[in-house]
Amino acid sequence: MKIAILGYGNLAKGVESAVRQNKDMELKYVFTRRDPAGVKVNTDGVIVKSVDEILNYKQDIDVLVICGGSATDLPEMTPKYAKDFNVIDSFDTHARIPEHFANVDKAAKENGHTALISCGWDPGMFSLLRLYGNAILPEGQDYTFWGKGVSQGHSDAIRRVKGVKNGKQYTIPVQSALESVRNGENPTLTTRQKHTRECFVVAEEGADLAQIEHDIKTMPNYFDEYDTTVHFISEEEFNRDHKEIPHGGFVFRSGVTGFDKEHKHVIEYSLKLDSNPEFTASVLLAYARAIFRLNNEGVTGCKTVFDIAPAYLTPLSGEEIRAHLL
Amino acid sequence: MKIAILGYGNLAKGVESAVRQNKDMELKYVFTRRDPAGVKVNTDGVIVKSVDEILNYKQDIDVLVICGGSATDLPEMTPKYAKDFNVIDSFDTHARIPEHFANVDKAAKENGHTALISCGWDPGMFSLLRLYGNAILPEGQDYTFWGKGVSQGHSDAIRRVKGVKNGKQYTIPVQSALESVRNGENPTLTTRQKHTRECFVVAEEGADLAQIEHDIKTMPNYFDEYDTTVHFISEEEFNRDHKEIPHGGFVFRSGVTGFDKEHKHVIEYSLKLDSNPEFTASVLLAYARAIFRLNNEGVTGCKTVFDIAPAYLTPLSGEEIRAHLL
Repeated sequence: MKIAILGYGNLAKGVESAVRQNKDMELKYVFTRRDPAGVKVNTDGVIVKSVDEILNYKQDIDVLVICGGSATDLPEMTPKYAKDFNVIDSFDTHARIPEHFANVDKAAKENGHTALISCGWDPGMFSLLRLYGNAILPEGQDYTFWGKGVSQGHSDAIRRVKGVKNGKQYTIPVQSALESVRNGENPTLTTRQKHTRECFVVAEEGADLAQIEHDIKTMPNYFDEYDTTVHFISEEEFNRDHKEIPHGGFVFRSGVTGFDKEHKHVIEYSLKLDSNPEFTASVLLAYARAIFRLNNEGVTGCKTVFDIAPAYLTPLSGEEIRAHLL
Repeated sequence: MKIAILGYGNLAKGVESAVRQNKDMELKYVFTRRDPAGVKVNTDGVIVKSVDEILNYKQDIDVLVICGGSATDLPEMTPKYAKDFNVIDSFDTHARIPEHFANVDKAAKENGHTALISCGWDPGMFSLLRLYGNAILPEGQDYTFWGKGVSQGHSDAIRRVKGVKNGKQYTIPVQSALESVRNGENPTLTTRQKHTRECFVVAEEGADLAQIEHDIKTMPNYFDEYDTTVHFISEEEFNRDHKEIPHGGFVFRSGVTGFDKEHKHVIEYSLKLDSNPEFTASVLLAYARAIFRLNNEGVTGCKTVFDIAPAYLTPLSGEEIRAHLL
């Protein structure tokens, strides 16, 4: 399978490194909106080109992995490139998924391609676990917790506060809430009861630290509904301890069965990830394999993780997975 | 969807109660090898018939859920009934899955039916999680732990010991082993290091308790490779505290990503089940829905959980699951 990447940020680098772990795949191209001369990739033999030239390489690409931002890039890019390629993206603006799906489906179907949107871990693996949980236990409750991990959006918000030189925000699930769900107590949880937010801030010299802390903790939508902790640290500490992009979380389905609904069941799925973009990239590649295979079978249009039979994700044969994984 | 059950043990009763939780399903028949007059079901309107008459009801059954034993019943029954029905079973003799699959596949394909074997939680949901984990993190290790829960096979083995009137065995994962895997330490674990076995025994009057304990703890294959605890209890305690059939377990995939494989990731899936047969039955019904739909689409032959796109498991539409679960 010949893979190409559009973009070259953290997610794209995750795809680049993950291709090396999948023996049936080869990374052929990185397409960039920047000057290609300024983009140095980590893999010998990979050709870097301007995205303006992408159609010239159409015949040599099995799946194009689109590594753009959900806010503005992907709603434009994925439908556009679905006309000429099998494409996959990690679109994660939940409210706009139906619209994005329709646009990508139309472009892919009209041109005989296969696309998959909203891939990764949430949306992605967490969505799958919610679906499996609901199908198996129709009478029950869903819970999703995120973290411990870095929220890019909240870190950006901190850095916009006056007097802040650098900052990073960790979302942390509340342990007692996790335990209550795990014990099948089916608690009703407020926003504040589910997650706390921990901020590490490098202040500018002479900045008013009390004011910074106040501005962060009261910020509407981002922090005001949470218990937030603010730690001021030096630039050295920041660079030493907060360079990584870990994340993770928990999906629970808690339900009942029995003639008198007397038996409780708790299904729990959790991820503990040292690198959010590299794990997301690893999920994208497994699904890239699936859409390439589906396209070869003549299945076209837009798919989500819900539409993909798990066997399509692995390079192993049906005989092998039945013998070793079933 | 019209459901019929073959057999009427614990698993079948689980299917009977789970049908009530699935609004698109109706339980029409229970077929038994016993005298049907002696089988009292829990649901009004369900018709109990001898299995000898099953072909008379062929036109009124969408999926036949075969609730037999893996050792001798299912290898005979599932291929036999796949000739006349869409069928599903919970065949769990791992070593014989390839042979069972081939037999069922032939019978189902030749007669235009759809079958699914080895459904439940292990094999079943645990298998799926192993497949997803391997596809996403190709470089890593799998771990499966079972418990805390009742092992039927080990309980049967205890009851065969001289001087034992009744007995139940719980399989318990070793907490320190779970923690080590959860921390991404990738331990190499012996059988003894993964699980302990706890036995609750009602002895016959005047039995030699020390001899019973010795006979259990040294029993080859069942107990000799484990740290086993034996508790002697009264019949009253047994009936009060050990009537339920709980189970559960953990599946982990622990792997690495990154150009230097410098990032660790741990995927964990766990089940905590008050009733093993009722949960297994709930999984069976979700997959019964899937094979009925696939059969309507003209897809025939034998499937496993690996072959079923998750969207087929839920009564919700594609639009609904994309809007609410993705």
